[in-house]
Amino acid sequence: MSELRQDPTTYDWIIMATERSVRPHELNGKKSSRHRGGDYNKECPFCPGNEQRTPPAEAVYGDNDKWKIRVVPNKFPALTPEGNTSRVHYKLFRKTQGYGRHEVVIESPRHNEFLPFMENEHIENLLRVFRDRYHALKEDTEVKIIIIFKNHGEEAGTSLEHPHTQIIASPVVPPFIRRRLEIATQHYDNTGSCLYHELLTNEREVAERIVMETEHFVSLHPFASHYPFETWIMPKVHKSSFGNITEDEIRDLSVLLKSTLLKLYEGLDDPDYNLIIHTSPVDDEHKSYYLWHIQIVPRLTQMAGFELGSGIYINIALPEQTAAFLKE
Amino acid sequence: MSELRQDPTTYDWIIMATERSVRPHELNGKKSSRHRGGDYNKECPFCPGNEQRTPPAEAVYGDNDKWKIRVVPNKFPALTPEGNTSRVHYKLFRKTQGYGRHEVVIESPRHNEFLPFMENEHIENLLRVFRDRYHALKEDTEVKIIIIFKNHGEEAGTSLEHPHTQIIASPVVPPFIRRRLEIATQHYDNTGSCLYHELLTNEREVAERIVMETEHFVSLHPFASHYPFETWIMPKVHKSSFGNITEDEIRDLSVLLKSTLLKLYEGLDDPDYNLIIHTSPVDDEHKSYYLWHIQIVPRLTQMAGFELGSGIYINIALPEQTAAFLKE
Repeated sequence: MSELRQDPTTYDWIIMATERSVRPHELNGKKSSRHRGGDYNKECPFCPGNEQRTPPAEAVYGDNDKWKIRVVPNKFPALTPEGNTSRVHYKLFRKTQGYGRHEVVIESPRHNEFLPFMENEHIENLLRVFRDRYHALKEDTEVKIIIIFKNHGEEAGTSLEHPHTQIIASPVVPPFIRRRLEIATQHYDNTGSCLYHELLTNEREVAERIVMETEHFVSLHPFASHYPFETWIMPKVHKSSFGNITEDEIRDLSVLLKSTLLKLYEGLDDPDYNLIIHTSPVDDEHKSYYLWHIQIVPRLTQMAGFELGSGIYINIALPEQTAAFLKE
Repeated sequence: MSELRQDPTTYDWIIMATERSVRPHELNGKKSSRHRGGDYNKECPFCPGNEQRTPPAEAVYGDNDKWKIRVVPNKFPALTPEGNTSRVHYKLFRKTQGYGRHEVVIESPRHNEFLPFMENEHIENLLRVFRDRYHALKEDTEVKIIIIFKNHGEEAGTSLEHPHTQIIASPVVPPFIRRRLEIATQHYDNTGSCLYHELLTNEREVAERIVMETEHFVSLHPFASHYPFETWIMPKVHKSSFGNITEDEIRDLSVLLKSTLLKLYEGLDDPDYNLIIHTSPVDDEHKSYYLWHIQIVPRLTQMAGFELGSGIYINIALPEQTAAFLKE
């Protein structure tokens, strides 16, 4: 018999469909082909020598002609710093101009240097770049939330192989995020504790879904995982915004992030995946009731009509089993 | 410059990303390969002669040995009529047994007879079967919502080619649906009108996103479409539940559904797609503030990290343009 689990942070229900369940290692089939040889591709707009193929850099780390990390505006931006954020409506149709920012962090000059194989120090620098860009983008007072995310592979929505992360600074806080904050606020008002921190404490007590733990962070497969091998990285120290991550935490996180991604890479044979840094809206950076965290979603199964039509997810792998598999 | 549009039924924001915009006919690249020859496949569990490969039928239309439509329990059910629906929780972890039903409607004995090529009368019969199963499933008082949906092609989440629709009867009403009802209820309380009916009226007044119209139904690409070529079929007569569709409406809908799917088939060269019948929860079948409707989502683009992390969708094709393209 399957089981319905409720995600305490969204109230979403997830069907843990044990009837269709497969062994964790059987889930590694789905991924796009990857160029694995050669660390340079002359067709790639992100490779050194092709700098003129991207818009001028917002920031360059390392020397200009021997850069290590490059931040550029997205050539096909979803949002741009033009126009304004006034809402206008005609009948029921409400809209606003596509004001905002859309940047790309080119993570390495090497075409095939993926995150889990970078040096720790380089991953630390990447995390520092994310934090720096967060602060640079929020200088614009129209920016209300900053989403840092990574698409790895075609199944995860990118056709560009060269390792990169995107940052979108949005003038609207979507209901998707407001909803999470409302639930967390209600929980805080009722119980006096941060829902996310309590969840982390509960997961550590139960211990069966923990993948790894360091001094400041824990990676785990949540009780009500929406997707097989969905992985959360949660900080132990309360902080609602990623923008406030400390140097000490960055050093610690780089170790845990590298190991967690390496486990996924090895356990699932380099799956396509998305990585998202969930952080509070800019105006809610110092709230006691939210905890920033990283979500990693390997794209192993397709979202189908049932998920699109009900918001109930069918997960074919139990997080207890996938966490145990990765832990090995 | 792109534009942010708000979906009035969910308050979701959609980025209409004209910078990345492509012409409608350029979007037809993505679909899985399809077996198009032969109307019989001896390996297919849904083809005649293989009836023993599915669980025993719940209902058969036509003769038993020459059936036209067959309804069977899903062999790998997400939910089953076992156990109960009591919620139990330990710490923050709330769950319930996977009680419910999961059926498959095998739409035709012919392996390659897809919906837009079926005879009108057969489509009518299919709609009657959906309505009949809706009523049969809601006899179980534990069932709180019934989701009827179709996955066509691998990108849409199915590996079975034989034309089929699935029905899941769920004991929980998910927040995804409650949220839509709350927004519609608030709108009704504020304005005295059904949000969905008003939206339909607005779309008909503006007229630029209508694909087709018959006596009782309209197909259109909504103002704030989440996906390129997302198509809604809305009834003109107010009714919150699909379960209450009349014979007259069924005859009319079969014509519009066939034509709409044929336009998508021809315009996008047989895209993978999901089709969902959105209907009120069983306990809300006679509400003035909700309108049942059909949503069709061709799977032309991938949901990426930004959508997963923010709930803001990037749509690369304007619904005005896609509707005009299909209308031709």
